[in-house]
Amino acid sequence: MTPSSTNLSRTEAWSLLALVGVSVAIVANSFHGDGEPLMVSIAFSVFAFSATYSLIRWLGPSFMKVGLKGKDMAKAKRPEIPETMGAVCAVVYLLVLIAFIPFPFYKDIVAATSGGGNRDVVQVVEHVEMGRYLHRFPHNKLASYLSGVLSLQAIVLLGIGDDLLDIRWRHKVLIPAFGAFPMLIVYFVDFGVTQVVVPMPLQPYLGEIINLGWLYYAYMAAVAIFCPNSINMLAGINGVEVSQSLVIAVLLLINDSLYLSPFTPYPHPAMDSHLFSIYFLLPFIGVSLALLFHNWYPSKVFVGDTYCYFAGMVFVVVGILGHFSKTLLLLFIPQMFNFLYSCPQLFHIIPCPRHRLPKFNAVTGLLENSVTEWAHPPPALISAILKILNHLRLIGIKTNTKGEIIESTNLTLLNLWILWFGPMKEDRLALHIVLLQSACGLLALFVRHRMALLVFPSDNRNFLSSV
Amino acid sequence: MTPSSTNLSRTEAWSLLALVGVSVAIVANSFHGDGEPLMVSIAFSVFAFSATYSLIRWLGPSFMKVGLKGKDMAKAKRPEIPETMGAVCAVVYLLVLIAFIPFPFYKDIVAATSGGGNRDVVQVVEHVEMGRYLHRFPHNKLASYLSGVLSLQAIVLLGIGDDLLDIRWRHKVLIPAFGAFPMLIVYFVDFGVTQVVVPMPLQPYLGEIINLGWLYYAYMAAVAIFCPNSINMLAGINGVEVSQSLVIAVLLLINDSLYLSPFTPYPHPAMDSHLFSIYFLLPFIGVSLALLFHNWYPSKVFVGDTYCYFAGMVFVVVGILGHFSKTLLLLFIPQMFNFLYSCPQLFHIIPCPRHRLPKFNAVTGLLENSVTEWAHPPPALISAILKILNHLRLIGIKTNTKGEIIESTNLTLLNLWILWFGPMKEDRLALHIVLLQSACGLLALFVRHRMALLVFPSDNRNFLSSV
Repeated sequence: MTPSSTNLSRTEAWSLLALVGVSVAIVANSFHGDGEPLMVSIAFSVFAFSATYSLIRWLGPSFMKVGLKGKDMAKAKRPEIPETMGAVCAVVYLLVLIAFIPFPFYKDIVAATSGGGNRDVVQVVEHVEMGRYLHRFPHNKLASYLSGVLSLQAIVLLGIGDDLLDIRWRHKVLIPAFGAFPMLIVYFVDFGVTQVVVPMPLQPYLGEIINLGWLYYAYMAAVAIFCPNSINMLAGINGVEVSQSLVIAVLLLINDSLYLSPFTPYPHPAMDSHLFSIYFLLPFIGVSLALLFHNWYPSKVFVGDTYCYFAGMVFVVVGILGHFSKTLLLLFIPQMFNFLYSCPQLFHIIPCPRHRLPKFNAVTGLLENSVTEWAHPPPALISAILKILNHLRLIGIKTNTKGEIIESTNLTLLNLWILWFGPMKEDRLALHIVLLQSACGLLALFVRHRMALLVFPSDNRNFLSSV
Repeated sequence: MTPSSTNLSRTEAWSLLALVGVSVAIVANSFHGDGEPLMVSIAFSVFAFSATYSLIRWLGPSFMKVGLKGKDMAKAKRPEIPETMGAVCAVVYLLVLIAFIPFPFYKDIVAATSGGGNRDVVQVVEHVEMGRYLHRFPHNKLASYLSGVLSLQAIVLLGIGDDLLDIRWRHKVLIPAFGAFPMLIVYFVDFGVTQVVVPMPLQPYLGEIINLGWLYYAYMAAVAIFCPNSINMLAGINGVEVSQSLVIAVLLLINDSLYLSPFTPYPHPAMDSHLFSIYFLLPFIGVSLALLFHNWYPSKVFVGDTYCYFAGMVFVVVGILGHFSKTLLLLFIPQMFNFLYSCPQLFHIIPCPRHRLPKFNAVTGLLENSVTEWAHPPPALISAILKILNHLRLIGIKTNTKGEIIESTNLTLLNLWILWFGPMKEDRLALHIVLLQSACGLLALFVRHRMALLVFPSDNRNFLSSV
């Protein structure tokens, strides 16, 4: 397939139609039973995959026409391809999430319209909750769900604004804070709990539970700013934004399923929160997979900042509304490292060029380290530190005959990886990052569930604490 | 001020700062009292006005740079000015609406975080509702409010997509249906009442109340499609989109206030619904006024389809969630007329050129009728009808020496108005439409509250039914 081909091949069209057929069948079947929301969510996610896959293909030319396009600099021919395709993902995702609302939420109060504009009748209908596994949510969780959707919609709106208008770096960083705003406001109105359990070593000083008050909101805002921006920072080679997000989503899904029925005694008190998280993650995986098909090396579309913000905010929403934001952060270890490693450049201790991506070598076809050139040799202290880091193989430097540093590698995880394992092809680098992300995440989850007992009185999965 | 000036003048800057100061003072003061939401809403709306006013001015050049610009064809020099400025309005509006949430909603249930990630505590805190006038909403209305915000956000997202990509007319029409989707879904889950009171003359046949079932949803979707599109259709001259929306908003506000305390005995059963509507309308009036300052003749910015969809959807949200959608439609008489009058062209019974706006005459500086040219004379039947309509002064035609019609005026309210009152300046035409809208609306409200008793057993304002 050439990048300009915007029609689905016959195989693609039939496969996607078959997937749509399967999902329609599952949803139709759910009406006969008790409307099992988890099955419906899976069906909706399959549908979301098919819809996104087709729309990305169809909308490419329209995006190019209005200037949403970019050059792929890591290819010999530097082809121009559509940009901001994450917006398509996000819109499909949001529609699916909204269409899904009736399935997990039952109505417990029915109040009347002002019938005919001339009367205000109020009726109350009693509903009997069946003793289902994976039951439906009580009505009062609807506001949480809606606030999550609202935050995601806000971040997409702002992300598209960012991709369209050229917003300065220091303003961009705050976009996710605005996106998280609806969720935090509803958290405040609807929920408002800001107590956390104190780790055991600190309990003699702070008590068993401590109320963090507004600090808790500051913490949540910090998480909301960190996750989207950190994904946006570990970016720039084909497929890396989407694949890292997919790994995080799948790991969160694994963590969520640990709280469900076959793995833990029913009903678990955190089950609702984790089901909630699953309902947000499944369609995300659907739309992201469809995007990855088009964004993996060699990319036929770019994802745009919109996708990075959107993906990060999905994680923030499930982490905060599902009450496992600390577990969430454990899955961001590569992103955190990348951020910390970048700090000297971000805060201009070391010069920061506009782009810090690995550089494409057209002769070998491999990605190489990109470097910062020092117009003047660095001050003695920085020079000494850089030389030590160079010895530790945490940075690469080049010196002139006088021993003065004339260039140093840019401080990103991607450059460091090339420093360690040598120049490599773009898809191999992306694959390495995926494997790194998976390994770090699995390890973190293992530590979180096995080692939590060392510092907390109990793990919040009953069956583990009873082991 | 020249259209290219993007700084606020000193007078503007100080006036806006003073307005911000006033609104901050009101909000700060509300924390000392019982947090009167209506006062806070007014303060937020004043703030929204100032923010929108400044942002429209500042963002102009950025919008122009990315191609969001258009030529004002009804000026001698055809200046190029920023387009889609309604998006700025809408984003400010949405942020204000979200920031407002804590004021009308009190928390009645507080459930706990999984503190420290390791425990799921549940606490219930009882709240005592004070006997306030204009009291705060019960918690269960939060989902309705959020669904309204969600619908507005969705329409803005889709509206921007429409302004950016060139979407075909027959697809565009359905954009508001997607926008209304979140609200209808939540209505279904949260509320679900589809009964209406039957007018008295029909009660012997249908009973007192009839359940419309899915028809009620179809009706709501139809309202949601009609309102935004009809505003988008009565458009195209400086200021007309914003000023008609402002008139409708103010009339709705008047209607809402009839249900509040000084005008009707407290507590009125529909009071909550109408307060709800006021909270959505006040900031809308704020941002629209700021836009009107820049969009009134001679326009310094265009509003874009985004604004028309957004404005229409604000009315749909308050009409449906406030349960007065039929009253709402009464305020759309000029839009309805414009739509019906346009039908022969929309359905291609009469040829429809791409633009049907009145034509600017550079010599006189006045707007004149725009016409459709008939390449072939119309069929005998249509020709006869057009000639009758021409006699009734409902259309203007030009015939050749053989008596065949060679051109007819385009079927829009604006053209009809020029046909009746002669060519006029652009601002005068806009002003006439504003006055027409106001007159029709006031009359409709009068009829609705005075005459409803003829067909319904009671008007839903108690004090009127007791007159």
